[in-house]
Amino acid sequence: MSDLQLSHARMPTTLEIEVIDEFGASRDQAIAAERALTLYLNRREIVTLMTLGAEPEALVIGYLRNQGLINSYEDLIAVHVDWDVEAAAVITRQEPEDLAERLGQRTVTTGCGQGTVFGRLLETTDMTTLPETIVKQSVLYHLLENLGAYNETYRSAGAVHGCALCHQDQVIDFIEDVGRHNAVDTLAGRQWLQGTVVDEPADIFYTTGRLTSEMVLKVAQMGISVLVSRSGVTQKGVELAQRFGVMLIARAKGRRFQAIGSAGRLVHDAIPSKRPGDRR
Amino acid sequence: MSDLQLSHARMPTTLEIEVIDEFGASRDQAIAAERALTLYLNRREIVTLMTLGAEPEALVIGYLRNQGLINSYEDLIAVHVDWDVEAAAVITRQEPEDLAERLGQRTVTTGCGQGTVFGRLLETTDMTTLPETIVKQSVLYHLLENLGAYNETYRSAGAVHGCALCHQDQVIDFIEDVGRHNAVDTLAGRQWLQGTVVDEPADIFYTTGRLTSEMVLKVAQMGISVLVSRSGVTQKGVELAQRFGVMLIARAKGRRFQAIGSAGRLVHDAIPSKRPGDRR
Repeated sequence: MSDLQLSHARMPTTLEIEVIDEFGASRDQAIAAERALTLYLNRREIVTLMTLGAEPEALVIGYLRNQGLINSYEDLIAVHVDWDVEAAAVITRQEPEDLAERLGQRTVTTGCGQGTVFGRLLETTDMTTLPETIVKQSVLYHLLENLGAYNETYRSAGAVHGCALCHQDQVIDFIEDVGRHNAVDTLAGRQWLQGTVVDEPADIFYTTGRLTSEMVLKVAQMGISVLVSRSGVTQKGVELAQRFGVMLIARAKGRRFQAIGSAGRLVHDAIPSKRPGDRR
Repeated sequence: MSDLQLSHARMPTTLEIEVIDEFGASRDQAIAAERALTLYLNRREIVTLMTLGAEPEALVIGYLRNQGLINSYEDLIAVHVDWDVEAAAVITRQEPEDLAERLGQRTVTTGCGQGTVFGRLLETTDMTTLPETIVKQSVLYHLLENLGAYNETYRSAGAVHGCALCHQDQVIDFIEDVGRHNAVDTLAGRQWLQGTVVDEPADIFYTTGRLTSEMVLKVAQMGISVLVSRSGVTQKGVELAQRFGVMLIARAKGRRFQAIGSAGRLVHDAIPSKRPGDRR
């Protein structure tokens, strides 16, 4: 893997602008950066992503991986990001034979920050069988507590989504982006870049965003079968989760959550004592 | 306008699924519908949108309008949506000469539910000059109160974004979708469908979502120069707002807000009395 040519073009993720508040007072407010990055695969323009810019190399690698446009890390020859021209050039040893055809088929999904799935990914049937990961309620609660230490940019600037690769209650990796799909792709890219460095394989995926069809799809593609979110689910998200065997734990805040497809996979070992108002 | 052939293929926006809560109890939970709708313009496949499905005809008309793929309501001959095949067929009298070229250029933006801008819309320079709408703080507060009566689906199912066309403190039109960009497009489509029925032109646009580049772009394309959101802003959103002369009022909740580009356009006639904790 060491022969991959890789740039390291990080950019600051926040900047300060002047805002006028409700008191008519002027003050500086940190806001999230949002940069255009046009991706070229073997000199062919694929797409322009709007991103925070924190990890552009991991983002484009993960994007191509999650789009099924590159199949293995070993196919990568070079990844070069140049912010001056807002371009990311990726060179690979091979590319899908039907690339042109797949680029011609677009599904604009419910994604934040990356709402396009090329080809017919949503109809993919060759998904490898996922492990039937079992999660204890107590582990879920510990994980939610551990996640509280993250989302740096969100606290200062808002307008970003956070995603995390987790092993049970441990956070393996966490990334924020203006779009949660960029965040997912960046994590997928990092997985490849870090290679075997990771001791524990991720078995739980956390996102601040909604559990929509392509979030489920991307997580399943990463071989993870537990998807936890602070937000709700959509119909297609539930459909795909059932198809791929992904357990969804939605609206997970504090002690609350709503599990879908959790039969035999969620162990209720930490049921909270009911208080008035606990049930909405 | 009366000769437009228009289907009326509404679908329920929520459905009930079984969830297991933190007490291990099973209950029914309403979730947002999410349907695929593939759009064909004069028999050419343009894109597949994931939508709530409440107003598919207005959605595809607004989508084509906001993408600059149709220039006037009069160009429309027929809009037919068939959920059995998840397809929307739009027939127009004419289409852009450079359609093929524009469809070849994609920008995947920070959009929820519709993250793709075709062609080089984000580089568009032929934006008509926007009115320099002036807003009173008292009017803003009344508008936020009036908006509280809406977002039906969100209250029952969550996982949707709401958008509203407003005239000062009055809500002219409100729509929710799994993606806020679908919501914006649906409002743009309704504007055309309702034609001159609307007495007051909209001068304020409200969204529950973030103020990102293409939200500003779409609102500016609708001729509106005031954009209010419950959420924060991103860098490109601020850049485009300055370029088009759009006043942004971000993080507008209760009495709080953060105005950007408001010099001479926001009248502070209702400054709240400061209380401890009012200033974050």
